[in-house]
Amino acid sequence: MGKELNNSYQNAEEVFSIFDKKWMGLIVDVLLDGPQRYKDIAQTIPTISDRILVQRLKELTENGIVIRKVYPESPIRVEYQLTDKGIALNAILAEVHKWSEKWGD
Amino acid sequence: MGKELNNSYQNAEEVFSIFDKKWMGLIVDVLLDGPQRYKDIAQTIPTISDRILVQRLKELTENGIVIRKVYPESPIRVEYQLTDKGIALNAILAEVHKWSEKWGD
Repeated sequence: MGKELNNSYQNAEEVFSIFDKKWMGLIVDVLLDGPQRYKDIAQTIPTISDRILVQRLKELTENGIVIRKVYPESPIRVEYQLTDKGIALNAILAEVHKWSEKWGD
Repeated sequence: MGKELNNSYQNAEEVFSIFDKKWMGLIVDVLLDGPQRYKDIAQTIPTISDRILVQRLKELTENGIVIRKVYPESPIRVEYQLTDKGIALNAILAEVHKWSEKWGD
């Protein structure tokens, strides 16, 4: 087993450890519709608490999946958008949903 | 957001929480080649300890991803094989590997 293959599994485990957290998949799905302001995300997912949503967006930003864009308007506009790395997660999430629908409880 | 969609996310989080554990993806990949005896799996992944491999196979069995088949031969033969639910994970793992190769460290 080559080093490259080992790395691939390690990276895979990192992906899974991001998305086993509650709301992560849903937040990325919401952002796949395009860049959004914090309050728009919060409105789309009314059952998530502010504390958790702020924390999740921070984690996604630190993982290079989401970028926080600040537009110097008046009032200042802040939007969250997926990076290319984040948009590419779409294929994984689509397969997970297919699997869940067929095999989940 | 309907109940059905919520369930889909919850199931998705369960999938991710299975595979964020070290070796899980690799063990399933190895079993995608067909049913195998414990010692064959252990030989294919020489860096995993017996304690962890036994534990992982137990978790995969409990999750309905792997089935432990006992053949009443002499000596008794025990094989681990993926269920249909387990085989269906192939599509997810393939997308995760593609993503990791492109975007991983």
